[in-house]
Amino acid sequence: MKSDIEIAQEVEHTTMAPIDQIAAKMNLTADDLENYGKYKAKLTFEAIQEIKQRPQGKLVLVTSINPTPAGEGKSTVSVGLADALNRIGTKAVIALREPSLGPVMGMKGGATGGGKAQLIPMEDINLHFTGDMHALTTANDTLAALIDNHIQQGNELNIDPRRVTWKRVLDINDRSLRQVVTGLGGVTSGVPRQAGFDITVASELMAILCLAENITDLKKRIAKITIGYTYTKKPITVADLKVQGAITMLLRDALKPNLVQTLEKTPAFVHGGPFANIAHGCNSVLATKMALGLGDVAITEAGFGADLGGEKFMDIAAPNIGHTPDATVIVATIRALKYNGGVAVKDLTTENLAALEAGFGNLKKHIQNMKRYNVPVVVAINAFITDTPAEIKLLQKLCQDFGVAAINTEIWEKGSAGGEALAKAVNEALAQPADFQPLYDKTEPVTTKIEKIVQTIYGGKSVIFSAKAKKDLKTIAENDWNDLAICMAKTQYSLTDDQHVLGAPTDFSIHVREIIPKTGSGFLVVLTGNVLTMPGLPKKPAALNMDVDENGVISGLF
Amino acid sequence: MKSDIEIAQEVEHTTMAPIDQIAAKMNLTADDLENYGKYKAKLTFEAIQEIKQRPQGKLVLVTSINPTPAGEGKSTVSVGLADALNRIGTKAVIALREPSLGPVMGMKGGATGGGKAQLIPMEDINLHFTGDMHALTTANDTLAALIDNHIQQGNELNIDPRRVTWKRVLDINDRSLRQVVTGLGGVTSGVPRQAGFDITVASELMAILCLAENITDLKKRIAKITIGYTYTKKPITVADLKVQGAITMLLRDALKPNLVQTLEKTPAFVHGGPFANIAHGCNSVLATKMALGLGDVAITEAGFGADLGGEKFMDIAAPNIGHTPDATVIVATIRALKYNGGVAVKDLTTENLAALEAGFGNLKKHIQNMKRYNVPVVVAINAFITDTPAEIKLLQKLCQDFGVAAINTEIWEKGSAGGEALAKAVNEALAQPADFQPLYDKTEPVTTKIEKIVQTIYGGKSVIFSAKAKKDLKTIAENDWNDLAICMAKTQYSLTDDQHVLGAPTDFSIHVREIIPKTGSGFLVVLTGNVLTMPGLPKKPAALNMDVDENGVISGLF
Repeated sequence: MKSDIEIAQEVEHTTMAPIDQIAAKMNLTADDLENYGKYKAKLTFEAIQEIKQRPQGKLVLVTSINPTPAGEGKSTVSVGLADALNRIGTKAVIALREPSLGPVMGMKGGATGGGKAQLIPMEDINLHFTGDMHALTTANDTLAALIDNHIQQGNELNIDPRRVTWKRVLDINDRSLRQVVTGLGGVTSGVPRQAGFDITVASELMAILCLAENITDLKKRIAKITIGYTYTKKPITVADLKVQGAITMLLRDALKPNLVQTLEKTPAFVHGGPFANIAHGCNSVLATKMALGLGDVAITEAGFGADLGGEKFMDIAAPNIGHTPDATVIVATIRALKYNGGVAVKDLTTENLAALEAGFGNLKKHIQNMKRYNVPVVVAINAFITDTPAEIKLLQKLCQDFGVAAINTEIWEKGSAGGEALAKAVNEALAQPADFQPLYDKTEPVTTKIEKIVQTIYGGKSVIFSAKAKKDLKTIAENDWNDLAICMAKTQYSLTDDQHVLGAPTDFSIHVREIIPKTGSGFLVVLTGNVLTMPGLPKKPAALNMDVDENGVISGLF
Repeated sequence: MKSDIEIAQEVEHTTMAPIDQIAAKMNLTADDLENYGKYKAKLTFEAIQEIKQRPQGKLVLVTSINPTPAGEGKSTVSVGLADALNRIGTKAVIALREPSLGPVMGMKGGATGGGKAQLIPMEDINLHFTGDMHALTTANDTLAALIDNHIQQGNELNIDPRRVTWKRVLDINDRSLRQVVTGLGGVTSGVPRQAGFDITVASELMAILCLAENITDLKKRIAKITIGYTYTKKPITVADLKVQGAITMLLRDALKPNLVQTLEKTPAFVHGGPFANIAHGCNSVLATKMALGLGDVAITEAGFGADLGGEKFMDIAAPNIGHTPDATVIVATIRALKYNGGVAVKDLTTENLAALEAGFGNLKKHIQNMKRYNVPVVVAINAFITDTPAEIKLLQKLCQDFGVAAINTEIWEKGSAGGEALAKAVNEALAQPADFQPLYDKTEPVTTKIEKIVQTIYGGKSVIFSAKAKKDLKTIAENDWNDLAICMAKTQYSLTDDQHVLGAPTDFSIHVREIIPKTGSGFLVVLTGNVLTMPGLPKKPAALNMDVDENGVISGLF
């Protein structure tokens, strides 16, 4: 069987279209583009501005059940659904997140789809792409250097080095940087303090880039970032440091959405990549707006399961896009549902109707959640070779009994040809009325907003706040930060904050460890359980298999 | 008076040529290019390979006296000389280094020339450019994460955490990261150890990128990097970790030279940017080869003064290019020579012939040094508005008495029109025979090679090795690393290792603090005095003045 990179390279080396041709499919000209090589481009600010004024198409959100080691293939379905819509004559444009390099070097498994439904050039997209992540890392760490430099050079603002909350970042899985002591080596090498690094995709700047409307909005949000507190606990912002201009300048080009293509030449904007377990998990508002302005249907995706990315799309991203979803697709696999039903990974290839039915509870909960927003829902069954007809039939029946169509798709194996039925079902869903109902109003108390997410979306009973979290609530109240949105940081593997609890549990509590105000992006990050903001590498990192030959051809990347 | 960015933007917004047109001037087609926006491109590997086979033009090395706060303008002269050569009908192509972002955010003063002799688009080149620096940072820090992960996950190679020599890097001036403790926070967050960050341009990967011939050579050099030692003091290389493929993959695109243009549309390769005080300070070998293959004359530059960058170009870069300079230009200003003659910065605007004559000693020593390599030398006087006719006349006479032509140039003010006389003098120098004589043979003992540099180039008396340096010499002997080149790390401001000693001192000793084997780049970095491998920011960083408006127009960048 061919690997994803081998399938991608066959097309890349033969029939991949120059990016100008992909743009021309949407009636954009070379003047609207800033090329990055022959197959990637950013839109110019002029083009972005013009497209934002156009009438918008319909918006489809692709989300999924809780991820499992069995794999769900949400990006694959997003890509294949767009290809299939184009195949049946509906002009679809994709808006997805950019991959983070850290996990690419660690675990096998790309963020550009798989099989016959992939974004290309996949090596470029998975590695440095157009440099957005690097610009974010640089902007983030330049701000960190400016903060420590301010403290070193007299500390006019009276910043308490113990209360600097702005962390450095790298787009690398590096557990050794989670907790560090910086500024060692004597007077000329800074003021020693405890510090730490997050992964770039967990940074507030990434969230801001994904939410910003334009340069002016970006700068305004950056100015409002809280970087720490004074000795008297007064918040210090980037505006206090007077460097919002410089930091925004470093993100000027990163703000422009990137255009690439699928294996079947569907236009795809790939822009912004916040993680959904520790950030809001949706691609940039600008990319989605471009897809809405240029397509009859825009396909976008939210990270991890519908409890994390899905909820955040509805309650954080959609208000910023100014367009709520017209339909939602929930991706599931028979294997992953059986895993949720208690089957071990090695036994997933065996037919097991009882386990499938037991595991269906997880999918059912996510259907319920997405329906709660009053948007039509379609379930996409991402087919695996080991699925049996009886299993597919059972899952379709279970969904039907619950009032939702479940469409078996063979996108991975066949590309758009395997997704026609799904495309038709999505078009039917889009013909239905959607009357979006948000989960909470931002003016409700913080604890109420958190409880609504925990009780309604996760199915939990209560929220337990740690002593630290209670202190944070006090700080939030004191600084008038109540009216921010809620960005839950929770394990992606479970509806609870314990990654080992599968299925659709009830009667559990969520443990809030800490609440971090992100005054620039406009939300409170609520850290639950043991979720980490800097991943580590596994014992045998994927990097061990990667190579590039004398002609620059890359191998071992998925 | 207009700032550099204002002069650059006037051209950028009106008459800047699409990069394809600049390439066409060298008979390259769109197929040879990978565009990065409309005004920047990388060459494809196919084009690079083909150009390397062509007959080569002549090579001109631009270097200077020791830098002073008064400014010398070496890049300005390099750019203006190439423009002027083209003006008088000699096809000249530029090969220069890429700027590092760290100093850009710290101190005012660009690396893209100034006045009417600039590289454009200057904002892009000075900020993220085509992402080469970011690729280096990522590759460097991915390797660091892989090392710490190896130690964390069982440490099969028996790496001594106290003897890891591979440092992390950022392209940021951040003194707080010079000395850090990483791996804190308990068992799951790594093995605690003392560590540190350098600036990206000081990294061995930067040096390797600048010396590599092609992907295969790049990978071979990366495999040979020494990252630390075992508990029994055996060196550990990247090959031992088996990740040379992955690290090379991350540098695939960064290896391709970047093409931009001057204000006067001269083609310029801007690629690789090692610092010359702590690394070898020359642009990539590939960029210089491209300029040699595509121009009748290639203009390149070495960092800081002729004692640092100049020496390293001759003894490290040239052997890797396989082409020694056919002429050398030494840049000086009357102001800087008066500063060397003991005049304070505020008094430099007053005519002072005695101080000029006293300061000439510094220029004289550098002329002597460059002549020692048996290559014709021309002095370029980079004119300032405050220079008096008597001062110019005196400096020209002093040079003439020493057997060297000194050409007054008004490149900053007038562009190529102000550089015609210099261009003619350089053409005359190129007509003279050059019979290159290297300073040392790599097989000589390490201490002999260092002494030759100190005594012949710096004019010093002796070398004093610290206890640590003596231990390092022992390690070098034990591991058969004697036959590597020497890369001195020394203050750029003085011929000695004390930045306050100006002019042309004699009878001084150089203090060698440490010797770091760079087995990938193939040289020993000899740390002298207090030279830092991670700069800090000043009290009022340049970042405070930077901004970007709603249309993406940048201001305050020089």
